[in-house]
Amino acid sequence: MDKNLNIDALFIGDKAENGETFKELMNQLIDEHIGWRRNYIPSDKNIISEEEKTSEDYKQTTNHMKEVLAEVSNRLRTESVPWHSAGRYWGHMNSETLMPSILAYTYAMLWNGNNVAYESSPATSQMEEEVGMDFAKLMGYKNGWGHICADGSIANLEGLWYARNIKSLPLAMREVCPELVEGKTEWELLNLSTKEIMDLFEKAGEEDKVDELKSRSARGGENLDKLGKWFVPQTKHYSWLKAADIIGIGLDQVIPVPVNEDYRMDVAALEKQIRELSDKEIPVLGVVAVVGSTEEGAVDNVHEVIALRDKLAEEGIAMYVHVDAAYGGYGRALFLDEDNEFIPYEELPEKYYEAGVFTENKQYIKEDVYKAYEAIKDADSVTIDPHKMGYIPYSAGGIAIKDIRMRDVISYFATYVFEKGADIPALLGAYILEGSKAGATAASVWAAHRTLPLNYKGYGKLIGASIESSHRYYDFLKDLSFDIDGHTIEVHPLVSPDFNMVDYVVKEKGNDSLADMNKLNHDLYDHASYVTGNLYSKEYIVSHTDFAIPDYGNSPLTFVKGLGFSEEEWNKEGKVTVIRSSVMTPYMNKADNFEYFAPKIKKALQEYLEEIILSEK
Amino acid sequence: MDKNLNIDALFIGDKAENGETFKELMNQLIDEHIGWRRNYIPSDKNIISEEEKTSEDYKQTTNHMKEVLAEVSNRLRTESVPWHSAGRYWGHMNSETLMPSILAYTYAMLWNGNNVAYESSPATSQMEEEVGMDFAKLMGYKNGWGHICADGSIANLEGLWYARNIKSLPLAMREVCPELVEGKTEWELLNLSTKEIMDLFEKAGEEDKVDELKSRSARGGENLDKLGKWFVPQTKHYSWLKAADIIGIGLDQVIPVPVNEDYRMDVAALEKQIRELSDKEIPVLGVVAVVGSTEEGAVDNVHEVIALRDKLAEEGIAMYVHVDAAYGGYGRALFLDEDNEFIPYEELPEKYYEAGVFTENKQYIKEDVYKAYEAIKDADSVTIDPHKMGYIPYSAGGIAIKDIRMRDVISYFATYVFEKGADIPALLGAYILEGSKAGATAASVWAAHRTLPLNYKGYGKLIGASIESSHRYYDFLKDLSFDIDGHTIEVHPLVSPDFNMVDYVVKEKGNDSLADMNKLNHDLYDHASYVTGNLYSKEYIVSHTDFAIPDYGNSPLTFVKGLGFSEEEWNKEGKVTVIRSSVMTPYMNKADNFEYFAPKIKKALQEYLEEIILSEK
Repeated sequence: MDKNLNIDALFIGDKAENGETFKELMNQLIDEHIGWRRNYIPSDKNIISEEEKTSEDYKQTTNHMKEVLAEVSNRLRTESVPWHSAGRYWGHMNSETLMPSILAYTYAMLWNGNNVAYESSPATSQMEEEVGMDFAKLMGYKNGWGHICADGSIANLEGLWYARNIKSLPLAMREVCPELVEGKTEWELLNLSTKEIMDLFEKAGEEDKVDELKSRSARGGENLDKLGKWFVPQTKHYSWLKAADIIGIGLDQVIPVPVNEDYRMDVAALEKQIRELSDKEIPVLGVVAVVGSTEEGAVDNVHEVIALRDKLAEEGIAMYVHVDAAYGGYGRALFLDEDNEFIPYEELPEKYYEAGVFTENKQYIKEDVYKAYEAIKDADSVTIDPHKMGYIPYSAGGIAIKDIRMRDVISYFATYVFEKGADIPALLGAYILEGSKAGATAASVWAAHRTLPLNYKGYGKLIGASIESSHRYYDFLKDLSFDIDGHTIEVHPLVSPDFNMVDYVVKEKGNDSLADMNKLNHDLYDHASYVTGNLYSKEYIVSHTDFAIPDYGNSPLTFVKGLGFSEEEWNKEGKVTVIRSSVMTPYMNKADNFEYFAPKIKKALQEYLEEIILSEK
Repeated sequence: MDKNLNIDALFIGDKAENGETFKELMNQLIDEHIGWRRNYIPSDKNIISEEEKTSEDYKQTTNHMKEVLAEVSNRLRTESVPWHSAGRYWGHMNSETLMPSILAYTYAMLWNGNNVAYESSPATSQMEEEVGMDFAKLMGYKNGWGHICADGSIANLEGLWYARNIKSLPLAMREVCPELVEGKTEWELLNLSTKEIMDLFEKAGEEDKVDELKSRSARGGENLDKLGKWFVPQTKHYSWLKAADIIGIGLDQVIPVPVNEDYRMDVAALEKQIRELSDKEIPVLGVVAVVGSTEEGAVDNVHEVIALRDKLAEEGIAMYVHVDAAYGGYGRALFLDEDNEFIPYEELPEKYYEAGVFTENKQYIKEDVYKAYEAIKDADSVTIDPHKMGYIPYSAGGIAIKDIRMRDVISYFATYVFEKGADIPALLGAYILEGSKAGATAASVWAAHRTLPLNYKGYGKLIGASIESSHRYYDFLKDLSFDIDGHTIEVHPLVSPDFNMVDYVVKEKGNDSLADMNKLNHDLYDHASYVTGNLYSKEYIVSHTDFAIPDYGNSPLTFVKGLGFSEEEWNKEGKVTVIRSSVMTPYMNKADNFEYFAPKIKKALQEYLEEIILSEK
């Protein structure tokens, strides 16, 4: 498609403006499926007769099914969150999802393919292979591979599984094919780069030693305690703790890296931690950099992590780098042109303005963030969730690996399980952590990637809309204040967004108690969420989170002090409760749309605050 | 529902006999969703204007989306497997799925809830909680719990995670709260039952030691090498190898248990293996019994495993028991009456005949199989996949645990993350292996469980239809032979089905080469599958598998000898290739339906065999 993509055409819409298009396409697809069923060996008789269809038990069963569906309908309509709303939902990472993905999912579900095995899903297995290559290409992996996962936690676990088994291979080589690693000390064996290990693994393959080698790797249960430490940002998402638990290295091997006041990993601190361990000959299993943190949307300086890795490599210290871009991964499309080339930073504003990525000719993209995205191409593996910034329905996670050869380190069958020529595994389940998986998910992601190309004119426009919306929201919040019965309540956003997430607090002017502020924000969340009252009538909906010392150290101190609290107060309370808005709405980028909703948000906030403050009297 | 369930009313149908009902309900549900969108703060303006909708880029984007969907449609219709067919698909474990589940999935997908967190999915989180309790109740767990997983591999991995972390707790207690395990030797600590460990864990909770205890358990990376061996049937599904690899105990700790000539675990051999290890003070981490093996549908004698566990417990040898009922789990509904009581064996035929579970008054259920299902209630955990015998679209796996307290062993947050009263976790992701998960899956499974109750009159009828179909197919095959240009080709089914799977071989009479027979069966598979020719015009479709010595030992020898091959021939060839039919069709239970398709299958087989044999001339 050469033409300008109009993303409004791709959603059902806040007021179901495209509802008729959606229904029309849905009916067409269902008809195509029904026609396919009827025309498979058309001479076969109808197995369900018209007579049976008029029988009493048939009618009763149908009625019963309708009653069950009516209850499903009631429950969903009563207890669901209206995040399709263009301008009233500013909460958790949820939003409308892409119409072509919902349609493709439903259509493919009618065949119910299982992508674990090609036999069960020829069409959708092919689509998943293409989607996997899309992921790899998006990340800048020239010789990579990828696939769809159940979710980001599973992708992260798979990344750690890769790291663990790869790191253990050189020790296995010492046993199985010592000639490959002759003369290397154990420390040196534990400090080979992923590329060096994969080159040696390939050589071992030429000698038919792969299976034996794998059986002596961490897969066999060997040497788990020798592989070293796994570094994750201090704000560690619990999926990383679970992963270290499950994978058997254990939480004792997880080292939290401090985050700065911008909520990004402190790479200088990381270097210091690694050097201290290296001095004691304790190796680094790997480092996780996060692109789009769950609570702040912060983008770690991946480029600094990569630079550190390269610097340490020269000193004989190696580490695996996994990028957890579950949330922010699709954002890389913003920086790719139609030839899949990374666009120079200084060209971004003009290109974006011309293509309508942003409605304003502004540089919304921080240079650090740009560099971080660029550097993902040098990481070993990356988590990317279509069901987050891909605007695809749950559940659709994903992972990409830099070097397709890595796949054989975790696989359970020899490469002959690949179909000749097709380059698609006959049994994908043998190459990934999971087993059965919905073919419909592959169709859903495939349809999205084909409708919105993974470049700045495709997905870039959708993600750009979300980013620009978050900036409008940030600018709106930072000057906001309320007069509630004589109390002045001010709004203070946390930091200017790296991506599309805006956190903020409401604070009563002149009240120096952090505990009071935390309570006020928690009360606000209760009012502006499912917790109290009727969800369907909420006029403004948010999420919330706590930044507490065990997870954040003193990173929030700059913000807390800026609000006028003392360090003593911070240490006493130990946390700050913030309102959290993942701004995924693709509609609030336009000035007039935002201006339409801004006073409505303000009014809703005013009412919530009145309810809270006046009820306490 | 008191009335007779008619399962034909619950599928779209071979020839889309219920296609109109499906469309009508789909449109109604979409309308209900659209109405809900429009009526959320109805005063808000339409964000997408009619003017925008007539713009050039809007129309082009819509057209482009339609073209993408047309390609999705073409691809699916070209390369999909017609397993909706009533009588022509006898292959992999695929079939039509339940209409209410497809509808509920699609409907719930329009809200795109994420069941990882209650905040993101109030309605569907509630449904998942109810479905989890359904699983527990189905398995006979009075104080159990359960939840939906991505698939059976993940559920199996979670089961092993439970076993590993629970087994490691007593060693942690020795460090953290030694008074609880005073006087116990290490061997005794490694031989406490799951119940004993959970009772001690509860006591530790009263002393606020839970977090410390967990941190010193296998979660911390401690003592993995002390926990002992993990026993799986020799036919070990590769998901169990992956699980042992991922969980860090390693493949070296996996002990294959021989299977008998009926492809069930040899429990006497298991006992011998365990005793040999116990004599060397090597503990048993756990044992996996399979209910519905992937290749044969075999049902292990779970009751014998449980009896062995109880006998060994008296001798101070303890083990965790996990039942992998990914495939056969829903079969337990066959044995439950409307009060959730297990029906006495001798009452089954009459009850089944009366309720229409079987169309013939026959005892299709082997007594061993009955006892095995009964005994699942005494296992510690069980995998059950709705997307297999639950006739629910992918992906929907599941797990149930016998003792709800086990949940806290693997959880990442204190129990206060549960909502007061509601008994539903605010963050389900903290209690399970995965993170984000589709709320739509919960709606889909919930709708199925409510439409077909989990007893013999609900799901029992559906599974009964599949079992009876498999018996008709088995009886049909066992007398079948073909004359192909002077060659007599005979059909030999493997064993009478434990559940609903029928494996068989075709063999040229008088040809004593096992290699030739294997080739003939492989060629037959190629013709009767996607491998050669046009899938959509195949008149009979099957799957296949190999029983090879590394995985099966000599279990197939009785069968192979019965075909007239020598033991020498078996050892030389080392495997037997069989045609595999997972009989999930719910239509072939009726005699006249089967008789309609039998000659068509025979004709298709005749044609495939002619193509194979004549082309070789």
